[in-house]
Amino acid sequence: MSGTIEVVQSSELVQKARQAKAAASALGKMTTEQKNKALELISTQLLEEQKFILAENSKDLIIGKDNGMNDSLLDRLKLDEKRLKEMADALILLTELIDPVGEVLEQWERPNGLDISTVRVPLGVVGMIYEARPNVTVDATSLCLKTGNAVLLRGSSTAIHSNKALVQVIHHALEKSDLPIEAVQLLEDTSRETASEMFKLNDYLDVLIPRGGAKLIQTVVKNATVPVLETGAGNCHIFIDETADPGMAINIAINAKTQRPSVCNACESIIVQKNWADDHLQELVKALQEKGVQIHGDAFVQQGGNQIIPAGEEDWGTEYLDLEVAIKVVETVDEAITHINQYGTKHSEAIISASNENVEKFFMEVDAAAVYHNASTRFTDGFEFGFGAEIGISTQKLHARGPMGLPALTSTKYVVRGTGQIK
Amino acid sequence: MSGTIEVVQSSELVQKARQAKAAASALGKMTTEQKNKALELISTQLLEEQKFILAENSKDLIIGKDNGMNDSLLDRLKLDEKRLKEMADALILLTELIDPVGEVLEQWERPNGLDISTVRVPLGVVGMIYEARPNVTVDATSLCLKTGNAVLLRGSSTAIHSNKALVQVIHHALEKSDLPIEAVQLLEDTSRETASEMFKLNDYLDVLIPRGGAKLIQTVVKNATVPVLETGAGNCHIFIDETADPGMAINIAINAKTQRPSVCNACESIIVQKNWADDHLQELVKALQEKGVQIHGDAFVQQGGNQIIPAGEEDWGTEYLDLEVAIKVVETVDEAITHINQYGTKHSEAIISASNENVEKFFMEVDAAAVYHNASTRFTDGFEFGFGAEIGISTQKLHARGPMGLPALTSTKYVVRGTGQIK
Repeated sequence: MSGTIEVVQSSELVQKARQAKAAASALGKMTTEQKNKALELISTQLLEEQKFILAENSKDLIIGKDNGMNDSLLDRLKLDEKRLKEMADALILLTELIDPVGEVLEQWERPNGLDISTVRVPLGVVGMIYEARPNVTVDATSLCLKTGNAVLLRGSSTAIHSNKALVQVIHHALEKSDLPIEAVQLLEDTSRETASEMFKLNDYLDVLIPRGGAKLIQTVVKNATVPVLETGAGNCHIFIDETADPGMAINIAINAKTQRPSVCNACESIIVQKNWADDHLQELVKALQEKGVQIHGDAFVQQGGNQIIPAGEEDWGTEYLDLEVAIKVVETVDEAITHINQYGTKHSEAIISASNENVEKFFMEVDAAAVYHNASTRFTDGFEFGFGAEIGISTQKLHARGPMGLPALTSTKYVVRGTGQIK
Repeated sequence: MSGTIEVVQSSELVQKARQAKAAASALGKMTTEQKNKALELISTQLLEEQKFILAENSKDLIIGKDNGMNDSLLDRLKLDEKRLKEMADALILLTELIDPVGEVLEQWERPNGLDISTVRVPLGVVGMIYEARPNVTVDATSLCLKTGNAVLLRGSSTAIHSNKALVQVIHHALEKSDLPIEAVQLLEDTSRETASEMFKLNDYLDVLIPRGGAKLIQTVVKNATVPVLETGAGNCHIFIDETADPGMAINIAINAKTQRPSVCNACESIIVQKNWADDHLQELVKALQEKGVQIHGDAFVQQGGNQIIPAGEEDWGTEYLDLEVAIKVVETVDEAITHINQYGTKHSEAIISASNENVEKFFMEVDAAAVYHNASTRFTDGFEFGFGAEIGISTQKLHARGPMGLPALTSTKYVVRGTGQIK
């Protein structure tokens, strides 16, 4: 019996992946106008069918409450008129962005007369794996369609009613468009076994993008043979060197820690050079505490402040994602860089300094997707960088690193024009 | 006991990977001059110690012969003075290429005054997995060092004496350079178990590059959780449409098939549109047969020629890598494109045509790393494209696609300069 069930599971996955792949081929030929028209139609359809969507969403919310889902998760799961309106508006904004597909990145001629150019093309089929946030269903789908990619969505079982409703509505919109409706596929089977199968579906999927917490992402990275776009955790540091302007340093540290503590580009550790700490650490600690931040500090920090929790080894590697921060005092810039490279997650790292030498050293030696001088790590974001959209923030080094805009969902193709050349 | 052995195996791998990672950090800071000097020193050292290298290589050759290794594999394994000279010369040529590390790819300013730039940086640690070709040891090492990457080499057990000798010589050269000798690591344990462990060593390796046959590559792709740069098989097609110039079409088909049949960019199937076939197929078949090419043909081809082997389903998907070709006759351009997308390996595909419409359609719809008009597929090559070096030819869509030059061994970093900006 269990064998039969497995075959059934597998066949939904493979069948939908195959349909997505076939649709990807047709999608790749769509013009920017055809793709934008489809996005507009989805935007309209979401609002037209909002009652249906909210009714289905409330089923998930009821089941979630019954199963003891906490308030923060329920809030992420919840859709309402305002959130649907935001989704619909985001789709319209997306139509205004430049379509990267077809862009000629380089063109050159070889001595033998061959004319070679590099042209952006869609990736093909994108596998999205995400948690109980139905907005990702619409967000991921729209980014994929804009870039000519088909998408196979695998959301959480706890959002299945919402996701099915949203994909049904998207299909209703696509029926009125030139795009194939098979370009958007939702896996209704949300079992772990099928997810594991999806991780290894190299024949049909060109890339997997996990969106969610560190655990989900690591599960995908550690098990997938399909190439993964790793959007990762952020254990981000602010390093205040001895030349830093005290007002600016404290201002940036407060912002990076407290403006939105739950996000990956928030600061989790502050590293302070001793000469600066001697004069300004108490002021920094006080300012953070006034904002309600709980401080874990090393021996030096404990000496100079009240209510400091002793920081242990585990604090340096912790993403608190809350109003908590670890503070460490170092003698040298080298010591700070070594610490950051040891405990950081290669996301966003900042130095506050008035020394060009220290800044250039930090930029060169700190291994991270984004390195900052005299600015908050909170700017690591596709919108803040001016990309107009964001797939996620890559913490891996292949393909795309840092905030990923639409071009991260494309590949390239060499187009070679000859006049009969042979080798 | 087997547990103990496993620990020992694992510890060589992890220890060397850890050393490579530590060295990568130092390597990333080296100037172009320091890296080029090291390449020159390796070039000199290879020639100075050639007697030692050739003596060690002959041990592998003797063992290979004793174990019944075939002549073609023995030839790939063999080093001699001429081949060492070629390696030494290639190192000097590499010093003349532009160092991609440090290149500023883009720079822009945001309305809030943040100055953002994208800078090329090394990947970190590259894991190379390859077969019994000792030249890859030197080739891979030199490309990695030029781009500031450390390398963990895992060659074949049948080339272990050669590889150990070459790495020892490379270390002798690095001792005289500013580069850390730990940047080049050779795994002496060539067991499958350790290779499998290496496939999943995400904590230390930034990328795996398999170099060798289709089987090796697929083993790595299907088992690795470390990101892979897939350099793949080539089932390349020449499509001759009804408007093609007969002389040019035959010339290109002959070149793509026969100039070097054993390589991945050689042609394996020729697709001919019926109207052209009616007038010129016999001439094409005859020209191929005169070059010693064995022809597998569909029913139409069989009718018009002698000594045609009936082509079956399996022929369309076969990389002969020899003087054999499959020929299929189609009615339409669409039929040709569908066939190519079904059986091709997304490597290199050519159309021979005088119709702009057909060419643009082919360029748009054929899914391959390189698409050609009126030229031989044999040009898909880093040197032919003018890159001056080649890591391999990527058939995947993430990171790099097609011939990969030095930039394929780099990542990027966002460098953000502020004046106190907070969010």
